[in-house]
Amino acid sequence: MAACIFCRIIKGEIPCFKLFESDKTLAFLDINPLSKGHALVIPKFHGEKLTDIPDDSLAELLPVAKKLALATGAEDYNILQNNGKIAHQVVEHVHFHMIPKPNEVEGLGIGWPMKETDMGALKKLLEEVKSNM
Amino acid sequence: MAACIFCRIIKGEIPCFKLFESDKTLAFLDINPLSKGHALVIPKFHGEKLTDIPDDSLAELLPVAKKLALATGAEDYNILQNNGKIAHQVVEHVHFHMIPKPNEVEGLGIGWPMKETDMGALKKLLEEVKSNM
Repeated sequence: MAACIFCRIIKGEIPCFKLFESDKTLAFLDINPLSKGHALVIPKFHGEKLTDIPDDSLAELLPVAKKLALATGAEDYNILQNNGKIAHQVVEHVHFHMIPKPNEVEGLGIGWPMKETDMGALKKLLEEVKSNM
Repeated sequence: MAACIFCRIIKGEIPCFKLFESDKTLAFLDINPLSKGHALVIPKFHGEKLTDIPDDSLAELLPVAKKLALATGAEDYNILQNNGKIAHQVVEHVHFHMIPKPNEVEGLGIGWPMKETDMGALKKLLEEVKSNM
């Protein structure tokens, strides 16, 4: 993926503020942070969406996100991974944000347009989704 | 954790729309969904925040979130895990949301109060955080 900016960072062609690296994983500071300590964890395997990444490249991502939360001293924080432009994905290589939430203003803003509980619809959906699992 | 609603769901004391279960992990439909297919993945290990969960209980969570995204047929979706009340956490047992984003109105709303890049501050922060890794 010659054009992918995260693949170029992995290869060392573009510098980053590197925090962690292993065979399968890279973590670095976001250069346009939402709050102090905002960092990214990415699989070295190139894929646009979570569903494109093999399980063995997913397993280490959360342990590394945990390391980042601990090392930045974040008390409250959000872990976020966006899939698709409409879902706020900008770089088309899977990345997990670890975003400290120090106060109401800085960090991730969340909108939560919750629906009413519809037990009948959920029951029907459950069978549909289960049949695909 | 007798009072934790997710621990009670894990024990079977409270029913859920169960999609997946293994030794370490449970997944079920959110009963107040933001969009059709909104589901939760939780470790059976009780902990309030990501930093409270052992790595071996974290490793399977993303592979299961991936299964959910595939089984619901979500094209675009957000993976979100909130830590702390100010970061929009409601139930104090780690849970990952898989929230389909079918259109601008339904699904997760995201606010992104991005800061300007400050290379000097990032360089200083890098050394601080790295020394804690």
